[in-house]
Amino acid sequence: MSVIKIKNPPCVLGVGNAVGKEEFDGPLGGYFSFHSDDNRFGMKTWEKSEAEMVKISYNNALSDAGIVSGDVGAIFAGDLMNQCTASAYGLSDTNTPYFGLYGACSTMAEAIMLGALTVSGGNFKAVASCAASHNCTAERQFRFPVEYGGQRTPTSQRTVTAAACMILSQGESCMYVRTVSPGRIFDAGINDINNMGAAMAPAAYDTLFNFFTSTGCAPKDFDLIATGDLGFEGAEILKDLMKEKNYDISAVYNDCGLMIYDREHQDVHAGGSGCGCGAAVLCSYIADKFRNGEFNNVLFIGTGALMSPLTVFQGETIPAIAHLVHFSSKK
Amino acid sequence: MSVIKIKNPPCVLGVGNAVGKEEFDGPLGGYFSFHSDDNRFGMKTWEKSEAEMVKISYNNALSDAGIVSGDVGAIFAGDLMNQCTASAYGLSDTNTPYFGLYGACSTMAEAIMLGALTVSGGNFKAVASCAASHNCTAERQFRFPVEYGGQRTPTSQRTVTAAACMILSQGESCMYVRTVSPGRIFDAGINDINNMGAAMAPAAYDTLFNFFTSTGCAPKDFDLIATGDLGFEGAEILKDLMKEKNYDISAVYNDCGLMIYDREHQDVHAGGSGCGCGAAVLCSYIADKFRNGEFNNVLFIGTGALMSPLTVFQGETIPAIAHLVHFSSKK
Repeated sequence: MSVIKIKNPPCVLGVGNAVGKEEFDGPLGGYFSFHSDDNRFGMKTWEKSEAEMVKISYNNALSDAGIVSGDVGAIFAGDLMNQCTASAYGLSDTNTPYFGLYGACSTMAEAIMLGALTVSGGNFKAVASCAASHNCTAERQFRFPVEYGGQRTPTSQRTVTAAACMILSQGESCMYVRTVSPGRIFDAGINDINNMGAAMAPAAYDTLFNFFTSTGCAPKDFDLIATGDLGFEGAEILKDLMKEKNYDISAVYNDCGLMIYDREHQDVHAGGSGCGCGAAVLCSYIADKFRNGEFNNVLFIGTGALMSPLTVFQGETIPAIAHLVHFSSKK
Repeated sequence: MSVIKIKNPPCVLGVGNAVGKEEFDGPLGGYFSFHSDDNRFGMKTWEKSEAEMVKISYNNALSDAGIVSGDVGAIFAGDLMNQCTASAYGLSDTNTPYFGLYGACSTMAEAIMLGALTVSGGNFKAVASCAASHNCTAERQFRFPVEYGGQRTPTSQRTVTAAACMILSQGESCMYVRTVSPGRIFDAGINDINNMGAAMAPAAYDTLFNFFTSTGCAPKDFDLIATGDLGFEGAEILKDLMKEKNYDISAVYNDCGLMIYDREHQDVHAGGSGCGCGAAVLCSYIADKFRNGEFNNVLFIGTGALMSPLTVFQGETIPAIAHLVHFSSKK
């Protein structure tokens, strides 16, 4: 496991996002810059809707950063659709070098890590890191088409309809990528596809515990430690696992899947999930709090479950991964 | 489009591969270090067979490089299976930071580019770049289960059963990554899923032509220009497109999909395809020719078609991408 302190930390030059109706109706609604009331974003198929959402968030990030696509040296992007077509189709007319990623729901953290490392290495002046998920494409692909109205278990999470994009660049701003820690694949032996939080929490623990012991940092050093999409079940497990090792993170910890919805008034079971969940919370609420000076140090931990519907049908356990990014207001 | 000259070019410290029966029976059979006579690699499902193949090629590359998994700072890997599970499951017990990629059949070139950039940047001492495809998992997922015995069109290609891994490292060897050029997404308007070569050739042209004009290099500067898996159709189109711009590549050009099979005596239609095709030819034949001094400069161009079966059913065109890596015997 490696914790990489970034040389010449790149700054967050701009962020963009686009979300669906349920996300806009949630507690963070006011932080999002674009939403679609019917989750279609003007398109006829859910797949095109997701691709359009990617395009909108990319363009919003460019205008927030005050640059054009020609200024972007490379795009790092991924999503949950088979063959990652939301990203490929949504970004197909950008004319910009493209690195397709698959990190399941950890994709945004992976995209930011690779973006930060290549900008820091002087390979690109600016890059775009993107991730997206759409409730209707994901439910159809991983579980059942939403039109079936299938029953869901209490531990299941709702795939978030959201795309987000972060522009990383050489230069100055109020938010820098200071440290990254790519996770290793961690298989805790869970094979319940309706309890992804339980499959991913041990991976988040593995990466976070290693970060604390390697750096000497403690929970109190951060304004927020946010996992991407552990949901209620996974978040509780992570807090317990950390507490067993004498790291009480409860005062500063939250999960983007719990932040994006109001579990009391929205029918989301254990909370939100999906690539777009952590990405959208990061590229709205968290970036905003850096801009107004409320946040100075945040750990963002992208969490991903690396199974497929086929491996689950074949009785395999669910390997998971967690990538950590430390954002700071100081270089 | 960017052509990146790598600072402190990393060396190829070792390569590993594992292939199926048809690949072993092909013209390059003698170059492969491991093969399975029934394409099962000792496993009960095709999916497990593919994951096992990934594991074998990774371990072979480690022993070829004379290192252990603990020496590898990060793995960059991907495959064609939905959710890239061949890589995730095959590499799940490596205990090594993992970056999942999806570049369709261009994945090996993408993995090498990211590996080279991060080693060059001093982030890792050594990394592993991996890619894999399996005929039986890919045919089932993208077309029909092979057990159906479906008819194939003359322009269709045979997905190669192969996994390969390259260890890139600081230090010295007979083969270095000198230059990389990540491609942009290029949609030529092709929507025939049985003619992927035609969809990918314009992307290969886009990246190669840009490389020549940006660097001032010419075809004669290379011992081999190898595309990953354009097959017969795509290879002819690429040669024509380059010739129209006064670059005659025919003397030094070949396609890994044409090299790995004997089209006269093997039933492979337009040649081989898949992530594993270019990866396996690179990590056997090409690496060998560097070792014995026959090759000093090779351009490896990974070519990928970024559609999914769903986008094809929905009538979309096929976006493609091509990533270029220049290997040289000199630093």
